[in-house]
Amino acid sequence: MTDDPEEAAEVTPYEVSSKFGSQDDYDRLIDKFGANRLNEDLLDRLRSHSDGELHQFFRRDIICSHRDFAQILDKYEEGDEFYLYTGRAPSGDLHLGHVLPFELTRYLQETFDVKLVVQVPDEEKFLFKDGLTLDDTRRYGIRNIEDILALGFDPDKTDIFFNMDYAGELYPTAVEISRQITFSQVKATMGFENSTNIGSIFYTAMQATPAFLGSVQNDENKHCLVPLAIDQDPHFRLSRDVAPKLGYPKPSILHMKFLPSLQGRGKMSSSKKHTFVGLRDSIEEAKEKIDRAKTGGQVTAAEQREKGANPDDDMVFQLMAYLLVDDDDELNELYEQYASGEILSGELKQICKDYLEDFLVEHQRRREEVKDNIDEYLVSNTDQIDW
Amino acid sequence: MTDDPEEAAEVTPYEVSSKFGSQDDYDRLIDKFGANRLNEDLLDRLRSHSDGELHQFFRRDIICSHRDFAQILDKYEEGDEFYLYTGRAPSGDLHLGHVLPFELTRYLQETFDVKLVVQVPDEEKFLFKDGLTLDDTRRYGIRNIEDILALGFDPDKTDIFFNMDYAGELYPTAVEISRQITFSQVKATMGFENSTNIGSIFYTAMQATPAFLGSVQNDENKHCLVPLAIDQDPHFRLSRDVAPKLGYPKPSILHMKFLPSLQGRGKMSSSKKHTFVGLRDSIEEAKEKIDRAKTGGQVTAAEQREKGANPDDDMVFQLMAYLLVDDDDELNELYEQYASGEILSGELKQICKDYLEDFLVEHQRRREEVKDNIDEYLVSNTDQIDW
Repeated sequence: MTDDPEEAAEVTPYEVSSKFGSQDDYDRLIDKFGANRLNEDLLDRLRSHSDGELHQFFRRDIICSHRDFAQILDKYEEGDEFYLYTGRAPSGDLHLGHVLPFELTRYLQETFDVKLVVQVPDEEKFLFKDGLTLDDTRRYGIRNIEDILALGFDPDKTDIFFNMDYAGELYPTAVEISRQITFSQVKATMGFENSTNIGSIFYTAMQATPAFLGSVQNDENKHCLVPLAIDQDPHFRLSRDVAPKLGYPKPSILHMKFLPSLQGRGKMSSSKKHTFVGLRDSIEEAKEKIDRAKTGGQVTAAEQREKGANPDDDMVFQLMAYLLVDDDDELNELYEQYASGEILSGELKQICKDYLEDFLVEHQRRREEVKDNIDEYLVSNTDQIDW
Repeated sequence: MTDDPEEAAEVTPYEVSSKFGSQDDYDRLIDKFGANRLNEDLLDRLRSHSDGELHQFFRRDIICSHRDFAQILDKYEEGDEFYLYTGRAPSGDLHLGHVLPFELTRYLQETFDVKLVVQVPDEEKFLFKDGLTLDDTRRYGIRNIEDILALGFDPDKTDIFFNMDYAGELYPTAVEISRQITFSQVKATMGFENSTNIGSIFYTAMQATPAFLGSVQNDENKHCLVPLAIDQDPHFRLSRDVAPKLGYPKPSILHMKFLPSLQGRGKMSSSKKHTFVGLRDSIEEAKEKIDRAKTGGQVTAAEQREKGANPDDDMVFQLMAYLLVDDDDELNELYEQYASGEILSGELKQICKDYLEDFLVEHQRRREEVKDNIDEYLVSNTDQIDW
């Protein structure tokens, strides 16, 4: 690890630096990627379509940037349909960090009442990681879909596919995209080497395809909005460059910050045990991880009563701010009490654990409700998606 | 052009040097590729399955080398089924040079009474050449299939697919193959650059896939024999290395020489007008191309009567030897007469034109017979091939 800002900001779809996470890091990354910040005008327009109330992700700058979000609002305000596209590459079970883009997607579907297409690229982690078979990614994919659907998508407007089941529809458009992208470009954008396998090299075309497939299969321009964690942006920077060459509209993007690791800098990550809470963790395990989380408190209780804690550098507070506490007044009050020394880290953890227990119990209840119905959402080569 | 033998022997699936073609060139290439020459034992075994008579391609060293052909004969002699796989990447109409691997394939299907699968990768030339749309390659593909079927394949044992129609079945296995092949490998084997597009880089996995798909879809080892022009070998060198890693048998290969250009060195090529006779050329056009062909004759008739011609360096004689004249006695007699000065180049051309007219008239008659039935051979994502 180093303090070199360039290295600190290193983010590709295949690697996020373990010290990435400060607002400065996001600011540098947004500028490097050439993305745009959300302004008051865009937020006002979104609020007007959302019962006068923005989702906490927008109120708390967790949506860090966008590309052409205005065009989506234009379309909507003109009465034109657009569709949502997001995805999940299965390699393990979902954790709270994965909930963020899907919760954003759920909110957007509810707000705009639009079609959602979810790609489950079961080949991606098979190609990029060692030790995973296609059977493994498939099995995790099914479990991931159960967790995704538990978040509450409209059954009439949500289609999900495994790439291995839907390749007949994906590959022809992926071929068109792939013809416009060189090895030099993916090397630079994705951090590839000459030793990268040729499936990984091609893969970005498969990920980009659903952003165009609504236009391809309708034989007319269908705008697409892609909510994603900002590390996935390189795929869509490439495909946005390709879009005009193929005559399709550029996909619009909303970029989310990563849910911070419970251990401090870096993102919540399944590969580092105490950084994450899994959606299939037991309540006990989940609480234990909160107990071990890095706080912004002082060394002794007495010192903390006197000096207060730093909520901005407290992973327990951050988890509540990012995901668990919707009410701004309540969150602000907690912030004040914690920063002033009125409540200690142990007390904050207890509050967080109560919220987390409610979240997980409710999530697990909903998962049980949907898990036998996932076939109703799944589409394959023989199905037509109504984009 | 240069006389450097390394450069002269330059052959990849995407470029064949315009001076490649001598027996020395083939010998160097076979050694460079690490292929094996057919020996008397293999030819005797093949002859024994073929009514005691070998196809002219085997009698005249037009099958220049092989990989594991013995294993196919072993399987057949043990009563196990194998299948044939070959293909055609459409970018224009077929010429006589394209007939060679398909005529070999037809002979092998007839001899062994086995399944044949023909890949029509409509994406390949779209990816590799400028100025072709997918609609273009599709249109040429249909015309190519008409000409291929006119050669006489068993309707009950022949399946043909466009990659764009069969990608649902191809892509999952292509992913498995692609994971085992790096950019460095395709760069070296195919002659790629960093500026090569990522679809082209991935494509070799799509071409290799049908050689394994018989095993994948039957869930048991199905051996595959691939008859092809030797420039296609690099695809299968890569996939043969991959086979044991995936647990599939290595495909066996029969390599053919290229039909020589009518203008001398290099292969018959659609991109050079007077080098080829097209299967859709009119009889007049075809004859005119024979009239313009490079001969091994002398400058004057008197000189030729005295010194004779060189049939080995005569493109008219070569066309007869490669394709048009099956009867060895007749061909040998022509060779002697021509070499001795008994017949002149104009007379040889007239003989060749008569053979060619018969060939084309018969081919065009058969094409008319099959052209309305090609749907019976075509399979797509919703069909199962009986490998």
